[in-house]
Amino acid sequence: MEPGDAARLGPGRAARALPPRLLLLPLLPLLLGRGLRAAAAASSGAAAEDSSAMEELATEKEAEESHRQDSVSLLTFILLLTLTILTIWLFKHRRVRFLHETGLAMIYGLIVGVILRYGTPATSGHDKSLSCTQEDRAFSTLLVNVSGKFFEYTLKGEISPGKINSVEQNDMLRKVTFDPEVFFNILLPPIIFHAGYSLKKRHFFRNLGSILAYAFLGTAVSCFIIGNLMYGVVKLMKIVGQLSDKFYYTDCLFFGAIISATDPVTVLAIFNELHADVDLYALLFGESVLNDAVAIVLSSSIVAYQPAGLNTHAFDAAAFFKSVGIFLGIFSGSFTMGAVTGVVTALISKFTKLHCFPLLETALFFLMSWSTFLLAEACGFTGVVAVLFCGITQAHYTYNNLSVESRSRTKQLFEVLHFLAENFIFSYMGLALFTFQKHVFSPVFIIGAFVAIFLGRAAHIYPLSFFLNLGRRHKIGWNFQHMMMFSGLRGAMAFALAIRDTASYARQMMFTTTLLIVFFTVWIIGGGTTPMLSWLNIRVGVEELSEEDQNEHRWRYIRVGVDPDQDPPPNNDSFQVLQGDGPDSARGNRTKQESAWLFRLWYSFDHNYLKPILTHSGPPLTTTLPAWCGLLARCLTSPQVYDVGGEEL
Amino acid sequence: MEPGDAARLGPGRAARALPPRLLLLPLLPLLLGRGLRAAAAASSGAAAEDSSAMEELATEKEAEESHRQDSVSLLTFILLLTLTILTIWLFKHRRVRFLHETGLAMIYGLIVGVILRYGTPATSGHDKSLSCTQEDRAFSTLLVNVSGKFFEYTLKGEISPGKINSVEQNDMLRKVTFDPEVFFNILLPPIIFHAGYSLKKRHFFRNLGSILAYAFLGTAVSCFIIGNLMYGVVKLMKIVGQLSDKFYYTDCLFFGAIISATDPVTVLAIFNELHADVDLYALLFGESVLNDAVAIVLSSSIVAYQPAGLNTHAFDAAAFFKSVGIFLGIFSGSFTMGAVTGVVTALISKFTKLHCFPLLETALFFLMSWSTFLLAEACGFTGVVAVLFCGITQAHYTYNNLSVESRSRTKQLFEVLHFLAENFIFSYMGLALFTFQKHVFSPVFIIGAFVAIFLGRAAHIYPLSFFLNLGRRHKIGWNFQHMMMFSGLRGAMAFALAIRDTASYARQMMFTTTLLIVFFTVWIIGGGTTPMLSWLNIRVGVEELSEEDQNEHRWRYIRVGVDPDQDPPPNNDSFQVLQGDGPDSARGNRTKQESAWLFRLWYSFDHNYLKPILTHSGPPLTTTLPAWCGLLARCLTSPQVYDVGGEEL
Repeated sequence: MEPGDAARLGPGRAARALPPRLLLLPLLPLLLGRGLRAAAAASSGAAAEDSSAMEELATEKEAEESHRQDSVSLLTFILLLTLTILTIWLFKHRRVRFLHETGLAMIYGLIVGVILRYGTPATSGHDKSLSCTQEDRAFSTLLVNVSGKFFEYTLKGEISPGKINSVEQNDMLRKVTFDPEVFFNILLPPIIFHAGYSLKKRHFFRNLGSILAYAFLGTAVSCFIIGNLMYGVVKLMKIVGQLSDKFYYTDCLFFGAIISATDPVTVLAIFNELHADVDLYALLFGESVLNDAVAIVLSSSIVAYQPAGLNTHAFDAAAFFKSVGIFLGIFSGSFTMGAVTGVVTALISKFTKLHCFPLLETALFFLMSWSTFLLAEACGFTGVVAVLFCGITQAHYTYNNLSVESRSRTKQLFEVLHFLAENFIFSYMGLALFTFQKHVFSPVFIIGAFVAIFLGRAAHIYPLSFFLNLGRRHKIGWNFQHMMMFSGLRGAMAFALAIRDTASYARQMMFTTTLLIVFFTVWIIGGGTTPMLSWLNIRVGVEELSEEDQNEHRWRYIRVGVDPDQDPPPNNDSFQVLQGDGPDSARGNRTKQESAWLFRLWYSFDHNYLKPILTHSGPPLTTTLPAWCGLLARCLTSPQVYDVGGEEL
Repeated sequence: MEPGDAARLGPGRAARALPPRLLLLPLLPLLLGRGLRAAAAASSGAAAEDSSAMEELATEKEAEESHRQDSVSLLTFILLLTLTILTIWLFKHRRVRFLHETGLAMIYGLIVGVILRYGTPATSGHDKSLSCTQEDRAFSTLLVNVSGKFFEYTLKGEISPGKINSVEQNDMLRKVTFDPEVFFNILLPPIIFHAGYSLKKRHFFRNLGSILAYAFLGTAVSCFIIGNLMYGVVKLMKIVGQLSDKFYYTDCLFFGAIISATDPVTVLAIFNELHADVDLYALLFGESVLNDAVAIVLSSSIVAYQPAGLNTHAFDAAAFFKSVGIFLGIFSGSFTMGAVTGVVTALISKFTKLHCFPLLETALFFLMSWSTFLLAEACGFTGVVAVLFCGITQAHYTYNNLSVESRSRTKQLFEVLHFLAENFIFSYMGLALFTFQKHVFSPVFIIGAFVAIFLGRAAHIYPLSFFLNLGRRHKIGWNFQHMMMFSGLRGAMAFALAIRDTASYARQMMFTTTLLIVFFTVWIIGGGTTPMLSWLNIRVGVEELSEEDQNEHRWRYIRVGVDPDQDPPPNNDSFQVLQGDGPDSARGNRTKQESAWLFRLWYSFDHNYLKPILTHSGPPLTTTLPAWCGLLARCLTSPQVYDVGGEEL
């Protein structure tokens, strides 16, 4: 070996490393999976005698090769993203609307997946089969005594006997197929946080009741209907002899849960571009954001419910209600945790005057928001739900305390992270169709699933809209209902939930089906949004500010120190409810009566107490709190409030 | 087990996952190391029969516990950083200068390390020892047949026979001690890129010759001297009987290489705050930035050089010169790669009019800069060097093509990443002193190392300054030399290089010693910078713009479309060389003669050809290129140039 070969490696790679293996870090772990493994293989020469130098060189070579492969595979993703960005620009530049950037990212992913699948040679690997009859239980760590040297092995997983020969079939495919936990712990938090942080609160809260109904009840209904329909499909498959392994009722329900989460990305991007009706936008956005959280909690409840029917996997009413209880417990716990972290951040940034150092402020903001996710996970709640509500709280309170620079900085930071994570997920989805090695394509199941999600969506939108319309003066029109029905496309969340567990036959079939559903809905439905909008006669180009205008608007507000997203007082004119009977129907009706008392109660509590305590705005606490809390009120109210408040009063 | 226990897990964790294990992603991989391992253990139940449901539950519990521990350990770091940020604010607020933020981060890390070390119970683990005599070679993957079920194991590394019982001694300590590759691949790139991107080019290039001499020659001299001195120390230890294992000459040289990289962070932060002499700042900053790159390439060359003397590990002149060749090859290759990526980004952002979509622009900029690192690693060059020069090129060319929003956005993004990465490294260093489980404290070696780095620094600064002064009209004064001598503190890079390989006894001793040297220099020298500056009579508060002012200044320039960091024309008045004889000596001397012809050549080439080709500024190519290139010149020159250029001409 030429010295240069090893030299080009960099110090540690060529050298012999035996470090602890936990990666705890933000940003890219380049050298994992096989990379680390090979590096560990290299490390086997650690205490080697000089005589074993040749062996050491061989393992060094292996480590070098592996590191290079890792870099290449990551580079593949980066270049994919770069290509996507350039094409997005081209599309935006030429105002192409039939294919959204996410669909594009998937297509590029598909192409690269095909190349990787059929263009890279299969490697035979250095596997060693060891047959040692021992206890029934597999241990997580194994010490192997190889002629006097001890090697530590870690368990990777069980392999079904039929697949022993296909293990490690292709290193490159393995490398580009990464751990599903990454979706949950790395890619989703910034996406969800951004959703919460950039939520247009006014329209969201105006339609809160309907949104909650669609998100909670609707998703549950959809999950249950899809689950039952799929159980029928599975029974049918069993009869026809299309099913080669177990598929329980709980598996069907699980499929219902993961496929019920709708994805807003494509449709909302188009809505935004066309300036479509804001209330429809709010309904869809609100539903899909809460949807994700609901789907996560729902699917975890179903998994929890599974062990209860240990050997039955059948329906059990008691266990079902237990699941509902768990669902509510996890949801409220996560909600509280997110809100509390937001409040703590608001208090820190209010009382420390961090805003003199925008960099520190942004870093703190970022860390606190991220720690919400970890805290929730550590406590056994759902990090995604916590991070969503943390985002909403941060936008509502903390945002007001940030310096002007930090406001734009945090928004931009999360915007970039969100954009990168989202496009990464979509290009990865395209890639996975060819690089994932355990696909189970079952035409019957796939067709059944398409029918089921259609029926599930219909059984969710139309009846719920009917009931909601009973309680609303201004109804949700048929065209809105049809649009909501049409917009139920599936995206990142369904994929992330499906890839999380692909161990059993049933789960592999679900994963393949989910992937195809995502492809279909993103391409067909995403592309059909614009024609559908005009066909359904939903007005576009409403006078509502576009995204950029809003940013500009926001900036102007920032400069004068007011939050543009601030909820309007509940008794002013801006309260309108949704009405969608047609673009020309009267929109000026006042709806004072319709804004629920609960909401008004919350608004005045928020405006009179929370805002003054947590931010520099709102009326001084000295005026809103009873007289006997005078001292406390003076401590908690920031001096700035008096300046602004004075004008307000 | 209550269903709730598993439910709180979230779907996948409680469930049985058998996914490929490669993590390819930006941002935090939460569930690694033991976490994954335990999850894999859980997956062992994958195709379990219903009868083995209890076993499945047990592994699920294990997976749950492991995930929770992972979240907690990451949370520890996040809270450490949060605490550090709050204290930094307090220090800045109260203008405390005796302890820099990095020193602070280390102290917090130390405290948490002590708590983790002595406060968490040791866990016995579920290890299984397997004694199967087989071939001499350890395989990277092992298939184990456990009573008919097949499990896949991956090699983690060799364990020295004496340590078999201490493996997995404490899960928590293992968890917080993460993979050293993370430093190189995740934490260092943003730090180095930021250094390149925010380089104050004018002062840097003004002193380029001296900086290169200090960085290249100086570091090599320092490495060689420290290496030889340490070899003496090691010999001495062998005689005294303090050395219990092998320690080769190349190990000593390696130590010299890793400990020769000086860290600018603390000193430069104080320089910045005090507005100390800009030329001294440029010298120290330039040295330390290039230093890092030199140390990386140097240490990898030494590792490459090692196998050449297979059974001697002694000095070999031919191999040494080969190393020098490798060194130059890697360095120039990496340099070219970084510069080329920068140029490509500049061209893309010039010709695509991406600046209409700042988000796309920022994302592209981020991805291209990151891909430099990966590309260099994939090609066998040094990513860190490539990313440094990529940063410089991006700042020089691409920056001019970015939209106003993207300019601030990219700067802020990398500022935040840099800040977080840096503080993370320092708090991790504090933590490592207690959580790292393979320390080898050798008082003789440590004392020897302190003496050696002192002598090495002295043998590098004073003779080099003497030779440099021979060629300079305006000498580097004694006070500047003393300050440079004093400022040679070691930081993140030395630590990252040392932790990269801690397999052998020698490397463990080096790691421990490096850690202590970093602590000492950051605390003592970092804290002593301010008194030292006044004692050496180096003027502070010079009229040079402070960081914030410069940003403001830059902003003002951005608004009028001019790059404030633009090199001044080489024949105007702003060329001054360093002189440091005292704060009052004449600084007005013109130095037209001293600006090297090479630099002037480069400047005019850059100004007349590169800038017009790569950016929207500079004179139109139609005026600078010969007439026969007219068409090409018209294509490459952007219309904006004519507007600006017209005024310039």
